[in-house]
Amino acid sequence: MEILVVNPNRVDGCTRLIHAAARAAAAPGTTVTTLAPGRGPFELTGQSEVLFSAVGVLEVIARTPADAVVMAGFGEPGKEAAQELTAAPVLDITECGPLLARALGASYTIVTSTTAAVPIVEDRLRALRLDAACAAVLASGQSVPDLVERRERALEAVTGVAALAATEVVVLGCGGMAGMAADVAAATGRVVVDGVGAAVKLAESLGALGLAPARAPRPPVTGWPFGD
Amino acid sequence: MEILVVNPNRVDGCTRLIHAAARAAAAPGTTVTTLAPGRGPFELTGQSEVLFSAVGVLEVIARTPADAVVMAGFGEPGKEAAQELTAAPVLDITECGPLLARALGASYTIVTSTTAAVPIVEDRLRALRLDAACAAVLASGQSVPDLVERRERALEAVTGVAALAATEVVVLGCGGMAGMAADVAAATGRVVVDGVGAAVKLAESLGALGLAPARAPRPPVTGWPFGD
Amino acid sequence: MEILVVNPNRVDGCTRLIHAAARAAAAPGTTVTTLAPGRGPFELTGQSEVLFSAVGVLEVIARTPADAVVMAGFGEPGKEAAQELTAAPVLDITECGPLLARALGASYTIVTSTTAAVPIVEDRLRALRLDAACAAVLASGQSVPDLVERRERALEAVTGVAALAATEVVVLGCGGMAGMAADVAAATGRVVVDGVGAAVKLAESLGALGLAPARAPRPPVTGWPFGD
Amino acid sequence: MEILVVNPNRVDGCTRLIHAAARAAAAPGTTVTTLAPGRGPFELTGQSEVLFSAVGVLEVIARTPADAVVMAGFGEPGKEAAQELTAAPVLDITECGPLLARALGASYTIVTSTTAAVPIVEDRLRALRLDAACAAVLASGQSVPDLVERRERALEAVTGVAALAATEVVVLGCGGMAGMAADVAAATGRVVVDGVGAAVKLAESLGALGLAPARAPRPPVTGWPFGD
Amino acid sequence: MEILVVNPNRVDGCTRLIHAAARAAAAPGTTVTTLAPGRGPFELTGQSEVLFSAVGVLEVIARTPADAVVMAGFGEPGKEAAQELTAAPVLDITECGPLLARALGASYTIVTSTTAAVPIVEDRLRALRLDAACAAVLASGQSVPDLVERRERALEAVTGVAALAATEVVVLGCGGMAGMAADVAAATGRVVVDGVGAAVKLAESLGALGLAPARAPRPPVTGWPFGD
Amino acid sequence: MEILVVNPNRVDGCTRLIHAAARAAAAPGTTVTTLAPGRGPFELTGQSEVLFSAVGVLEVIARTPADAVVMAGFGEPGKEAAQELTAAPVLDITECGPLLARALGASYTIVTSTTAAVPIVEDRLRALRLDAACAAVLASGQSVPDLVERRERALEAVTGVAALAATEVVVLGCGGMAGMAADVAAATGRVVVDGVGAAVKLAESLGALGLAPARAPRPPVTGWPFGD
Repeated sequence: MEILVVNPNRVDGCTRLIHAAARAAAAPGTTVTTLAPGRGPFELTGQSEVLFSAVGVLEVIARTPADAVVMAGFGEPGKEAAQELTAAPVLDITECGPLLARALGASYTIVTSTTAAVPIVEDRLRALRLDAACAAVLASGQSVPDLVERRERALEAVTGVAALAATEVVVLGCGGMAGMAADVAAATGRVVVDGVGAAVKLAESLGALGLAPARAPRPPVTGWPFGD
Repeated sequence: MEILVVNPNRVDGCTRLIHAAARAAAAPGTTVTTLAPGRGPFELTGQSEVLFSAVGVLEVIARTPADAVVMAGFGEPGKEAAQELTAAPVLDITECGPLLARALGASYTIVTSTTAAVPIVEDRLRALRLDAACAAVLASGQSVPDLVERRERALEAVTGVAALAATEVVVLGCGGMAGMAADVAAATGRVVVDGVGAAVKLAESLGALGLAPARAPRPPVTGWPFGD
Repeated sequence: MEILVVNPNRVDGCTRLIHAAARAAAAPGTTVTTLAPGRGPFELTGQSEVLFSAVGVLEVIARTPADAVVMAGFGEPGKEAAQELTAAPVLDITECGPLLARALGASYTIVTSTTAAVPIVEDRLRALRLDAACAAVLASGQSVPDLVERRERALEAVTGVAALAATEVVVLGCGGMAGMAADVAAATGRVVVDGVGAAVKLAESLGALGLAPARAPRPPVTGWPFGD
Repeated sequence: MEILVVNPNRVDGCTRLIHAAARAAAAPGTTVTTLAPGRGPFELTGQSEVLFSAVGVLEVIARTPADAVVMAGFGEPGKEAAQELTAAPVLDITECGPLLARALGASYTIVTSTTAAVPIVEDRLRALRLDAACAAVLASGQSVPDLVERRERALEAVTGVAALAATEVVVLGCGGMAGMAADVAAATGRVVVDGVGAAVKLAESLGALGLAPARAPRPPVTGWPFGD
Repeated sequence: MEILVVNPNRVDGCTRLIHAAARAAAAPGTTVTTLAPGRGPFELTGQSEVLFSAVGVLEVIARTPADAVVMAGFGEPGKEAAQELTAAPVLDITECGPLLARALGASYTIVTSTTAAVPIVEDRLRALRLDAACAAVLASGQSVPDLVERRERALEAVTGVAALAATEVVVLGCGGMAGMAADVAAATGRVVVDGVGAAVKLAESLGALGLAPARAPRPPVTGWPFGD
Repeated sequence: MEILVVNPNRVDGCTRLIHAAARAAAAPGTTVTTLAPGRGPFELTGQSEVLFSAVGVLEVIARTPADAVVMAGFGEPGKEAAQELTAAPVLDITECGPLLARALGASYTIVTSTTAAVPIVEDRLRALRLDAACAAVLASGQSVPDLVERRERALEAVTGVAALAATEVVVLGCGGMAGMAADVAAATGRVVVDGVGAAVKLAESLGALGLAPARAPRPPVTGWPFGD
């Protein structure tokens, strides 16, 4: 099975961390390709960049053949659009982290990057009807570059916030936290779910069960904002 | 006061209809400029085009000075992103139609374009916390080209669906329906709110009251997906 | 356009403040008449007075011709009843403040008079389906006489509470706070919406758009509790 | 124990029906006095009359000593105000019918008078946080005069609508239906709860358990709209 | 009228306390029999014991004739199952305490036993659609043996927590607190509702009004896990 | 990895169907053991049997070592209790079917056995906070014996109801439907999720990611209703 993982930002170190986490979660027969958009913002520091990045993410998904697609941005829109462009099931870590967390406990806490990300994540959870079981969305204060370049310090910050969670289960709410789950769990005694790993396993589960969206992808799309 | 109205699609006739409705609603001292994106999809037939068009819409908003901005797409995302890019208050007809409708009645029905638009509108209303007073979102079956090119037939279809509403107040849920409110009201006996007109009046109201977002716009954004 | 504004209490200074705020918000061609009931409680200190005052408010509305009516009590019932008695659209500042606030931000905080008013306002918002976007209702501890007679001290108290709001947008939740919005905004850096000004602008907006309730008012009502 | 029952309308036959139902439900040692307001509307045909009648209802409650008060209007406001004016616990049939119904089943249907009453009842249930267990509010099409003067026909209509309920438990949602519960139950096989009987038993229950509001009533109120 | 009260645990002192409270609440003509299961766990310290005890509780109910049944465990499942096994109405103190509390105030606080009971009670309230009016579920830290054997200390703890409630009305959320209502009320100035007393009065109310479930009980059940 | 699957009823054919579906979904290295309770009801025809069966289900789980446990009853309680008794993660098909369905679409329809099961399933979904994304719970009219003994007819009935779903994704809401997903999907064009297969894959996913509840199981439980 070939899984395409897409990192919405263009921070190379982040793409590598996501790839490693996806690879670590994947079963022996699974191939993982992790790509970032070929255009768009380097880092998603606001709602504008979130929308700008979506176009590049969709371009990657539309043009890369795969058996399943994992969108590795937490809180970003675009899953429904992506599903229009490919026959492969599209999984969003914003959904997959919380869904696997729910199998482990009645409610969970999300630890995300900066405070600016909190309302973005909350709004997205509400739109996805996943807000009922989410006890809280907490900011770690760590941006993607922080999570990539100052890994030790970022891990400490994420661990400190995860330790404040009122729930047993914690979801890592940023692609840049990929790979941190075991360390945060060990330090806090919590059950820690990484959305990237969760999405890879759910992709494999759908594949094994033969489940995929019923609708065929649309014919090649026109109207890309940067020309076809 | 200068109001910039942005039509998310690139159907010229639609831009003209929106401009006429905005112009008709505007007070004597108000200038209305209505623009469509310079790039992106012609028509928003799916969730992909909705996201593709957002980039062009944001480009127009970031580069056109105005005292207030009206986003004339119903159900499209981007208001929060647009507000990052301009000091002028940004008004979305998806909010303004329902808000003015609520001043007129405890609940209202939205009549939108095609059935594909219904879940997009419903999801957006949920994210905006505007779903509680919305009795139903009904599709008229009329696409934007239908609304522009076969105006008589489209008016009949919209009127027919508006007449089925269980509420006294009806909101026209598509920019392409701009200008139809009076005819639909006359034919159905309902109170019919056009989001474009509502947004123009709310923009003027904010201006008259000196109300605008407290946060300054960000420095010029980099990372446009098509280059800066 | 002639707007009738009705202050539900009989504190003259409050009626004057409300009138000044309505006048300040009104467009050049708009006439504002502000009246208090000719009978009923001086001040609304509890739920009994809230109901007692409603009768006098309705009497004023039924007997004063106008193009639009603004009910300037925050949290009081009676809008639906008032709409039965007049062909003019009836606007309640309890709705108009929050509605204009929602156009400016996804959620807002209401600063009201005394702690006794908090559950009255909360219950009314729930009945009006306007509770979803309201982050909190906070009491300033200032009664209507406080707001009128000890204006400086009251302004300080309202400002102090507004500064505690977790949202960027604050709604002044008492007719006696009319006229305070600019000062509170300047002192706190928040966007501050006064319900009276909001209602006047929404009344003008409905007028300009030709929107009014579809149902004709009823024939002259009998059964006033104090005789006809 | 002395229970004061207050009928919000001034239809004598309705007061008599309510009294008979309250009397039939009361325990041997309970005295029931049933009164209508001394002023205000004859019949509650709209939201205006609902508010007008409240003043007269409060006057009766403030001036009549009792151990418990039952407000026998379904959907009318005023319970909170009434509780300010008396030390006796005030019970509203709008609450008591649904509460006893909930003890009998997880959800219930309310059969009310005319279609005009449906939104009044729905709004009141929402304000009271009693909407979650209410499956539907259905109109029987019978006004209070219909229920009093054309009893046979009205019983048939109420029975016909009760038979359509999707729930096993039905609540009679109008004071004028007092006394109909047994007949409707026999004809439909449903469990039928009359709010008046329910309120009398809950009043006796509170009395037997020594439960009453903790706050003392206020000093004599001034500000009656018709003079003191 | 014969009321069967069932204590889900097998702590004799607890059964006696529940019996005394039920007896004290009962009308002169009411007979109260209070039983504990003949098998199952001594104390309900977790979700396993909650389920284990249900079988014994159902056995008692199926085999003991009564005019009404009161289930005296707070938060335990089984009411729906019990109603299948008897023609008598089955009342659960988890419902009856909150229902009577709602007649006294718009919202209430539940004080329960240990922190382990809090999510059990919260989940049950949600399933019963009784969560909307519940302001909070607070743990007193007192287990059933604490409540029985160290009564003074337990009363102090319950009183201390009840005094923290943000609502005027408090519901005692554990059968082992039966008999404490008057003392807690005196010490805190709150209105305190004991679920056992509430259920007894509601049972008598249903009896007096001739209300009972419409469905006949099923034929004798087979499949008891311990043999028939 | 060793997965223990527990069928709550004692219909042998049903246990075999569940085992086959679990086996078919399992990865090469996974061992599946499927057991029914050694005591309790043959078939779960009401809420009493649902509770009776839970004790036997818990007994099996407490006494059978496994790496993960799948509870194969749809809507039955007991997951929280089971998790107290074992260190292995416990997965309930009532959760796993809907969770995997949510990864495939924003909402889904559950097709369950008989109409008696509908409120049981609805109540359980509400308690689990999984109701928001569930569009409807529909009954197929097929009991477990029907599903086992008259397989062809039952498949037809399930297919007929699944074809009525308003959503693209359908969840099979009964353990006796295990093995039907592919046929129902082929006949209806829907995406059909079988809870048993979903739970097996989620169990494997948790295992692969090293995720398990943080709390250790309790010491051997006493208080089994049938003796220890």
